[in-house]
Amino acid sequence: MTRTVLESKSKTVVIGFDEPFCVIGERINPTGRKKLAAELEAGDFSTVEKDALEQVACGAMVLDVNAGVVYNSNPNPNETEPPLMTRMIQLVQGLVDVPLCIDSSVPAALKAGLETAEGRPLLNSVTGEEDRMELVLPLVKKYNVPVVAISNDDTGISEDPDVRFEVAKKIVQRAADFGIPAHDIVVDPLVMPVGAMATAGRQVFALVKRLREELGVNTTCGASNISFGLPNRHGINAAFLPMAIGAGMTSAIMNPVRQVEMEAIRAANFLMSHDPNGGEWIRFAKVLEAVEGGMSFAEASSAQTGAASGRRGGRRARG
Amino acid sequence: MTRTVLESKSKTVVIGFDEPFCVIGERINPTGRKKLAAELEAGDFSTVEKDALEQVACGAMVLDVNAGVVYNSNPNPNETEPPLMTRMIQLVQGLVDVPLCIDSSVPAALKAGLETAEGRPLLNSVTGEEDRMELVLPLVKKYNVPVVAISNDDTGISEDPDVRFEVAKKIVQRAADFGIPAHDIVVDPLVMPVGAMATAGRQVFALVKRLREELGVNTTCGASNISFGLPNRHGINAAFLPMAIGAGMTSAIMNPVRQVEMEAIRAANFLMSHDPNGGEWIRFAKVLEAVEGGMSFAEASSAQTGAASGRRGGRRARG
Repeated sequence: MTRTVLESKSKTVVIGFDEPFCVIGERINPTGRKKLAAELEAGDFSTVEKDALEQVACGAMVLDVNAGVVYNSNPNPNETEPPLMTRMIQLVQGLVDVPLCIDSSVPAALKAGLETAEGRPLLNSVTGEEDRMELVLPLVKKYNVPVVAISNDDTGISEDPDVRFEVAKKIVQRAADFGIPAHDIVVDPLVMPVGAMATAGRQVFALVKRLREELGVNTTCGASNISFGLPNRHGINAAFLPMAIGAGMTSAIMNPVRQVEMEAIRAANFLMSHDPNGGEWIRFAKVLEAVEGGMSFAEASSAQTGAASGRRGGRRARG
Repeated sequence: MTRTVLESKSKTVVIGFDEPFCVIGERINPTGRKKLAAELEAGDFSTVEKDALEQVACGAMVLDVNAGVVYNSNPNPNETEPPLMTRMIQLVQGLVDVPLCIDSSVPAALKAGLETAEGRPLLNSVTGEEDRMELVLPLVKKYNVPVVAISNDDTGISEDPDVRFEVAKKIVQRAADFGIPAHDIVVDPLVMPVGAMATAGRQVFALVKRLREELGVNTTCGASNISFGLPNRHGINAAFLPMAIGAGMTSAIMNPVRQVEMEAIRAANFLMSHDPNGGEWIRFAKVLEAVEGGMSFAEASSAQTGAASGRRGGRRARG
């Protein structure tokens, strides 16, 4: 069975066909978050700290770290991103002990992240674009880390799932040329909005099955894209995730500070026989009880995490 | 593609591989409902009326009718059930225009139901027990109706899904001997509680796929059994239903007056490409808005149904 091994300094997380669904927390990312971008430019990392602690408390098993901020004072990301990536990774791995996912389109920032991250982080990402493969795959090989492979190439994103499968296959083959095994590739088959493309859900379910059976790779996705533009998005997401898990999806890059989606994932883990005796479900039900009592989901999750580890509140900094 | 056709006097509902999931409302059933049983014995049908209207407003496409009450005044169901079944069916089909599911373990009550129901009702149920097959299948043939086939036999309910598959296969074969086609058999593969059997979910998903691919039959289940004995049951049900739908399940006998489960089904229909342009989803989102505004789910659903058909409130009696 395919196993993608991620590590922090002290913790191992396996993305795998026979593992609980791997939730990769997406929040540490200034893209589209003006307030966070401004804070980072001003050297204020309080939101990053809060996002790290909250996401882990709510159930993130891996944290994505993206430093893709465009400073007002310096619009060149090749200069600003690498040192900011280093700083953010140092901060996050000082606060929480989950493996990290180093997320950038700037090769120097990926490299800075790889130099800084302890353990075995996930690199995010390579695509089927020729220049990306030639830039990123050597880093993947050199640092011996797994990588997210997104199924678009120089022709863009195809609406045809067969084309997206072929792009994934091309990346897996090219990676093999570099000596990178398929179990270190986590394919994102690209989730289209079901409001714009009626077959978007079925496409993903079929693609995940093929990627798993024919290429033997783990899979991930930006889950919330499925509900883009629709009312009551949580409801769509909360059905999509269990269906994707049932089809064989093994991870998602998503916001874990959302109760409805996390509830759906925990129930799906139980139903896939990945929660022995329902221990995780029963603990989660206590979090939901606290939410009914008036706490926010993040507060209730933190309290439960603290109770489970014999401490109150979130984890403390190790540094 | 397999299509099981049900009819009321004026409405056709198809259970099928390429159809929206068929919700069969389970509430008109005195089993375990002492208050309802007492009302029925006293000749009070107000709860039946309310249950019929509410379930249809909330999205039931078929209504199960069970008259299995044990009267204090007469403990013999062979005497009490048939006339009560007749009365309840007359009442329900005078109020709503969905097809009915005639539910009894008493053959005379099944026969009374078949004599009374307009259109093409679903018969509930036959099992793999020899005496049940010999009693029920002739009725199925005579009245040319589809039937629910439950995967237990004279040896009881097996925990081995392969045995349950073989029981279903035996019923389908025996039905064929009576001239009943596979597309008129809706198999219930039996859902075990995941709290008692860790593989319960995976069993159902695998069984549904086999039943569909190898026997070409539609499937149904008592969906809420999956979460028996667990905290936050709605959360388990709301993940189970989309996963079962993704695996190919085509109907369930369930309580449609529960928002969380119905939301999961409507989202799953959309994701299976069975809700063109998301029209049903968008209408349902309006119901949820009304619920947020303080209405009960049943009230909000009734108001939306009324608005959609140009009337306020539930349907009116035709009689």
